[in-house]
Amino acid sequence: MARKVIVVGGTAAGLSAASKAKRLDPELEIIVFEKSGYISYGSCGLPYFVGDMIKDPDDLVSLHVNDMRDKRGIPVFIHHEVTHVDSSAKKIQVKNLDDGSEQTYQYDDLVLATGASPIKPIVPGVDSDGVYFLRTVEDGVRLKGAVRKGMSAAIVGGGFIGLEVAEELTAQGVKVHVFEALPRLLPFLPESYSQMVLETLETNGVTVHLGEPVMALASSEGKVCGITTASGTVECSMVLMSIGVVPNNALAKEAGLELGIKGSIVVDNRMRTSDPSIWACGDCAQTENSITGQSAYIPLGTTANKMGRVAGSNIGGEDSSFHGVLGSQVTKVFDLYIAATGLNLKQAIDAGFAAVESQVVKGDKASYYPSAKPMYLNFILDSSTGRLLGAQSLGSEASAIRMDALAVAVDAGMTVSRINDLDLIYAPPVAPVYDPILIAASQAMKKVRS
Amino acid sequence: MARKVIVVGGTAAGLSAASKAKRLDPELEIIVFEKSGYISYGSCGLPYFVGDMIKDPDDLVSLHVNDMRDKRGIPVFIHHEVTHVDSSAKKIQVKNLDDGSEQTYQYDDLVLATGASPIKPIVPGVDSDGVYFLRTVEDGVRLKGAVRKGMSAAIVGGGFIGLEVAEELTAQGVKVHVFEALPRLLPFLPESYSQMVLETLETNGVTVHLGEPVMALASSEGKVCGITTASGTVECSMVLMSIGVVPNNALAKEAGLELGIKGSIVVDNRMRTSDPSIWACGDCAQTENSITGQSAYIPLGTTANKMGRVAGSNIGGEDSSFHGVLGSQVTKVFDLYIAATGLNLKQAIDAGFAAVESQVVKGDKASYYPSAKPMYLNFILDSSTGRLLGAQSLGSEASAIRMDALAVAVDAGMTVSRINDLDLIYAPPVAPVYDPILIAASQAMKKVRS
Repeated sequence: MARKVIVVGGTAAGLSAASKAKRLDPELEIIVFEKSGYISYGSCGLPYFVGDMIKDPDDLVSLHVNDMRDKRGIPVFIHHEVTHVDSSAKKIQVKNLDDGSEQTYQYDDLVLATGASPIKPIVPGVDSDGVYFLRTVEDGVRLKGAVRKGMSAAIVGGGFIGLEVAEELTAQGVKVHVFEALPRLLPFLPESYSQMVLETLETNGVTVHLGEPVMALASSEGKVCGITTASGTVECSMVLMSIGVVPNNALAKEAGLELGIKGSIVVDNRMRTSDPSIWACGDCAQTENSITGQSAYIPLGTTANKMGRVAGSNIGGEDSSFHGVLGSQVTKVFDLYIAATGLNLKQAIDAGFAAVESQVVKGDKASYYPSAKPMYLNFILDSSTGRLLGAQSLGSEASAIRMDALAVAVDAGMTVSRINDLDLIYAPPVAPVYDPILIAASQAMKKVRS
Repeated sequence: MARKVIVVGGTAAGLSAASKAKRLDPELEIIVFEKSGYISYGSCGLPYFVGDMIKDPDDLVSLHVNDMRDKRGIPVFIHHEVTHVDSSAKKIQVKNLDDGSEQTYQYDDLVLATGASPIKPIVPGVDSDGVYFLRTVEDGVRLKGAVRKGMSAAIVGGGFIGLEVAEELTAQGVKVHVFEALPRLLPFLPESYSQMVLETLETNGVTVHLGEPVMALASSEGKVCGITTASGTVECSMVLMSIGVVPNNALAKEAGLELGIKGSIVVDNRMRTSDPSIWACGDCAQTENSITGQSAYIPLGTTANKMGRVAGSNIGGEDSSFHGVLGSQVTKVFDLYIAATGLNLKQAIDAGFAAVESQVVKGDKASYYPSAKPMYLNFILDSSTGRLLGAQSLGSEASAIRMDALAVAVDAGMTVSRINDLDLIYAPPVAPVYDPILIAASQAMKKVRS
C-alpha cells in the first residue's frame, strides 16, 4: 500500500515539501491542507498589494490548486483546518471551514508547515474594528479595503513589514504614524544607519514615535480612533499591528513534539521532529545559524522554501540536509535599500567572537558617473582571525544586491584580507574601480590584530 | 642614501605602486613620469566623457599632480616620456615633451607601468584625418571634439569600448555603424546572448556589420570618408578604431626583460620581472588566471590597480602576492547590462575541464513586482565535480551586480550544489524568493555526473 503523507500548510514550506517528495517518489500519496483560501502566496508581497502596486491578490500566487493537482499530482484542500493530531495513532482531524464537516485521516508521514501568526499584544482596544494584521492574503484584502486617501494610520512595530507598509500607505495618500517600542529603528543596524532610515521616513512624511510602547488603542463605538502611549494619544482611523510573529505550534504541542526558541518546533538538519513520523519546516520550525551553529528562529520566505525542499527530499527517499541560515535580508523604505547578512555586532559578541565593526561610505558607481549614490557598508569581523562574520548596508538597489556577494563570502568563511583581493566587476556605470566591498575590506584589515 | 624608485606611467598601476611603496617606507625617493598630460584617470570612463555624460576631462581624474606631491610626497612629471633604459647601469633617459630637453636618472628600483596602446591595423587609409583611437584623456578630447549631431561614424571593433562608444555617440545624435570581424559580438558569451546584444544595438539604431573585417579606410583629401569591407564601402565622416590593445613593451625589450603573451612583461606573483631591479604592473604586464593557474594577458583597470599595489607593497618592504585574475567584467549597452566572471565555455574546455554550460532565465525581482526584468544567466561548470568555473549574464543593472556574488563563489571554489544552498537576500522589490543565482545552480546540478 502506498505511503500516505499529509502536509499541513500550503505556502512556501508545505508546497515545497509536497512537490519535492512527490517528484522523487511518485508512488507517495500526498495531500495538503491549507486553512486559508490561498496557497503558494508570497506574503512578503502583501505590502505592495496593499499599496496597489500589485492589483490582484491572485498575482501573489505562484501555484494554484489546479496546478498542484493536474501538474504535480497532489490534491490540495483550501479552507481546511487540521484541528487535531493523534501522534500515537498517526491520525489527524480536519475541519472543512466551508461546510463545517470534519474528517479523520491516517498518515505515515506528517509534515507540519503551519507557519507563524502575527503577535497580538494584550492591550486594551486591540479587538476594535479597524485594527489589522498582515500575514495572509485575506489579511491583505481586508487592510487594502480599509485604505482611503487622506486618512491617518498607525503602524505598531517598525520592523520590515511595518516600514514597507508605511511606505505603501504613504504612497496611497495616507498620513502614517509608526510606533516603535525600542529607542531606534532596526537595531541590527549600526546606530547611524538607524538614524538614516528614520530620516528617510520623516523626509517622506512618516511620523515615527521611537521608544513608545503602545499602552492602549483608543476606540469609539467599537472602532479604533487612536494609539495611546506614555506620551499621550495620537488619533488615527486604522491600525496595523506588526510587532513580529510567533510559530503556529498548537498541533506540535498536541503531538508532544519538542519545542525550542519562541515555541518553534525543534527539528534535526533533515527536518525531522522529535517524533520520527513527523517533519516540520518553514516559519513554524526552529533552525540553526550557520555561522555560530547555535539554534535560531529566523522566519523568512527563502528559508521556508529551502527547509520544505529538504523535508520533501528526505520523505521522498533522498538524504538531504539543511545547512542553516545566515539571516540574509533586504528591504526598501522609499528610495533607501537596507540589506544585511550574517551576524550583527551584538550577535557576534554574544556568540563569543572577538567581534569589531568597520564602516565605510563609497559610491556605488565611478565617482564621475552622474547617477552614483553612496553605499554605507558596515563589516562585522572577528578581529583575531579577520574572518567576515556579517555585514549591513544602506544605499541604492545596486548597493543592496552587493550584499549577496558578502553572503557568499561569509558562507565561504573568507577573511577581510581575502575579500580585499577579490576580482569584482568594474565599469563606470556599474561600479567604481575599487568597489565598496573592496574598500570596506581594505579598511577592515586595519582592525585585525596582527 | 635613500633608495631611488622610478615609476614609468602615472595611471592606475603606476600611482598605486608609488603610493603604496611610499606609505610603507617614507624614506624612499620615488619619482613618477607620465608621458601624457593627465595622471590617475579612469580610461574606462572615456566613452561617457565622449558622450558628454561627463563634461570635464578633469572629472575623470581622481588624483592630481599637486595631490601626489603635497599629500603623498611623490613628485610626478607629466609630459615626460621615458625614452631609454640601461638596465645594467640602472639608468633611464627621460624626455620633457614640452621643451624637448633630456635628462638621465639613476634608479635602484624601476617600475614599468607603461600600460597598453590601441592596436593600429595595417590597412590603407588608417592615417587619414578623422580616424580616432580612445585610450588617453587626450584621445577622448580629440574624439569628443569631432562629434557633431547628424554625422555618421564607423566603429571598428565590437568589444566593450566599441559598444560603449556606439551607445554614447548614438545618444549624441550620431548614426553609428559597428564593424566586427568575427561572425558574432562578444564571443565570450553564449551565442543566443550575442544575438540579444546585437538586437539591442539594432533596436537603438546602430547598424552592426558582423563577419566583416575592414580592408581599407576610404578617404578624400586626406580625410576619412568610408569603411571598405568585402561587402563594399559604407560612408562615414569619422572612424573609431577599437580592436584591442597591445602592451607598451619598448622599454622592457630594451632592458632585455622576458616577455610573454602578446609581448606583455613576464612577472612573478610579487610583480618582479626577470631583472630583479625592475618591476612591472598593470596593462603592460602578464598575469595569471586564478582558476587555471595559466598565464594570461587581461588588461583591466581593477587588475592594474591591484598589481600596482602589490608591486608597491614589495618595494616598500612588505611581502605581498598577487592572486591572479578571474576576468570579472561588466558593461552596459543602452539598457542591457552584460557581465561575466571566470572562464567561458571555450576557455574552460581549453584548460582541460570537463566543462558544460547551463542556462536559465529568471526575473530579477518577484514575478509580481512591476519592474521585474528577466536575467539571462549562464553557468560554466566542471561536470565531473560540479565546481562553478565561470558565468555570464545579460539583464538589468541589478542582474549585472549579481555577478559579484558569482565571482566570490568561483573564487571560493564552490560547487553548484553548494551555491544552490546559499542564503541570499530576498524581498519582492529586490529579488525573487529563489534568486536567479539559485535557479541557475539548481538547473546546473542536473548536469553534474553523479
